[in-house]
Amino acid sequence: MQIAVVLYDRFTALDAVGPYEVLSRIPGAETVFVAEHTGPVRTDTGALGMVADRSLTEVTRPDVLVVPGGPGQSDLMEHEPLLNWLRAVDATSTWTASVCTGSLLLAAAGLLEGRRATSHWLALDQLTAYGARPTGERVVVDGKYVTGAGVSAGIDMGLTLLGRIGGDDLAQTIQLTTEYDPQPPYDAGAPHKAPAHLVESLRSRSRFILRQAHSR
Amino acid sequence: MQIAVVLYDRFTALDAVGPYEVLSRIPGAETVFVAEHTGPVRTDTGALGMVADRSLTEVTRPDVLVVPGGPGQSDLMEHEPLLNWLRAVDATSTWTASVCTGSLLLAAAGLLEGRRATSHWLALDQLTAYGARPTGERVVVDGKYVTGAGVSAGIDMGLTLLGRIGGDDLAQTIQLTTEYDPQPPYDAGAPHKAPAHLVESLRSRSRFILRQAHSR
Repeated sequence: MQIAVVLYDRFTALDAVGPYEVLSRIPGAETVFVAEHTGPVRTDTGALGMVADRSLTEVTRPDVLVVPGGPGQSDLMEHEPLLNWLRAVDATSTWTASVCTGSLLLAAAGLLEGRRATSHWLALDQLTAYGARPTGERVVVDGKYVTGAGVSAGIDMGLTLLGRIGGDDLAQTIQLTTEYDPQPPYDAGAPHKAPAHLVESLRSRSRFILRQAHSR
Repeated sequence: MQIAVVLYDRFTALDAVGPYEVLSRIPGAETVFVAEHTGPVRTDTGALGMVADRSLTEVTRPDVLVVPGGPGQSDLMEHEPLLNWLRAVDATSTWTASVCTGSLLLAAAGLLEGRRATSHWLALDQLTAYGARPTGERVVVDGKYVTGAGVSAGIDMGLTLLGRIGGDDLAQTIQLTTEYDPQPPYDAGAPHKAPAHLVESLRSRSRFILRQAHSR
C-alpha cells in the first residue's frame, strides 16, 4: 500500500504531518511525500522546509492520496499540472483524502462534485462553487472521499481513515502510540465555541486575504 | 523573540510540528529549526525529511527552546555536542520545553533535576534516573520548564506555552485558526482508556525495544 502526501509552496505543516503521523504506521505501508518538483518545500510560515522525495510524475498509482491545505492552495486552483495529476491518481486510488483547504484543490479538480465535504471553517462556503456540498462536520466520509476540517483536524481524519483501512484495533493502537488524548487548555477551536470578538477578527482578516487573492 | 526547534535523526515529526504550528504564529517571532548539521533530517519512519536551516553552533540564544521526542532520542543520551548545547541555550532561555521523550534529553542534560516533568507514557519512569519527578499529566509547567506527554501532546503543550507568552486571546485565536477542536473517532489515547490487550501489546514491544537499545 502506497500513501502519497502532496506538498506545495505555503502548505500548512500540521495539515500534512497529522495524517502522515498516523497513516504511515500502517504495517507494510510506504508513505511518500510528493510535489511538482523534488526537494524542500516551504510551509506557510516560511520557517520550515519539508522534503518532497518524489515528483508528481514519479507517483502514478498511490492507494491513498492526502492533500493538505494552507494559504498556497489559492494559487493552485487553476494549476493544471497539479489538478491533472490529482484527477489521474484519483482514478485508481482506494481513498482520496484532504485536510483543511486541501478539499478546495480536490474540488477544483472536479473530484467532489455532488459529494459531502468539509474544509477550514473560514473556507467552507467556497466548496459550493465547485459543486460540493459543504458540511460543518470535522471529518466527512463520502464514498472513498475523506475530508477533514482545518489544520489539526487532519489527525482525526487520519485516525478515521486508519480505522477504515486497518480496523479499530490498529487505529486505537496508533492513537495510544501517539498518545492522542487531547486536552486543549482552552475551548476555542471552533467558531461557535471561541469568544465572538476573536471569531469576527479572523473573519475580517480572512475577507481581506481573499480580496487580495482575487485582485491579483 | 526566537523559537528554536531541535531536530535529530529519527525524531517524531508531530512532536516538532505540533508546537511549531502554534508557537510560530506569535506575531514577530522567528522560528528556526536547528540540528547538529544543517540540511534534511529524517523522521522515525524514514518517510519524511524536515530541513534544519541552522546548525547548533549558529543558534546561541533562543528565547524558547523546544525539544521533540522520538526513537532517535535514545542514541543521544550521552551525546555531548547536543547535551552541551542544551545546557548552554537553557542558561539564557525564557522557556525550555519538550514533547514526548524530548524530556529525557533535557533530563540527561541535567536540566530537570528536582523538577516535575512528563514524557511519553511508555518512557515516563525513565525520568527518575535523572532526578526529575515524573507526573502523568499531559502538560507540566515547572518554572520555565514545560514538558508535554507523547507525540500529539505537543499541540496542548504549545498552546499552554503560547498562553503564557502571548496571553489567552492570542492562544485562543491560534487555536481557532488551527481549528483545534479535537474529536478523535476513538477514546484510546491514554493507557487507562485504551483496550487492555492493546496497552499490554505496546508495553511488551516497548520492553523489547529498550532491551535492544541497552544491548548495543
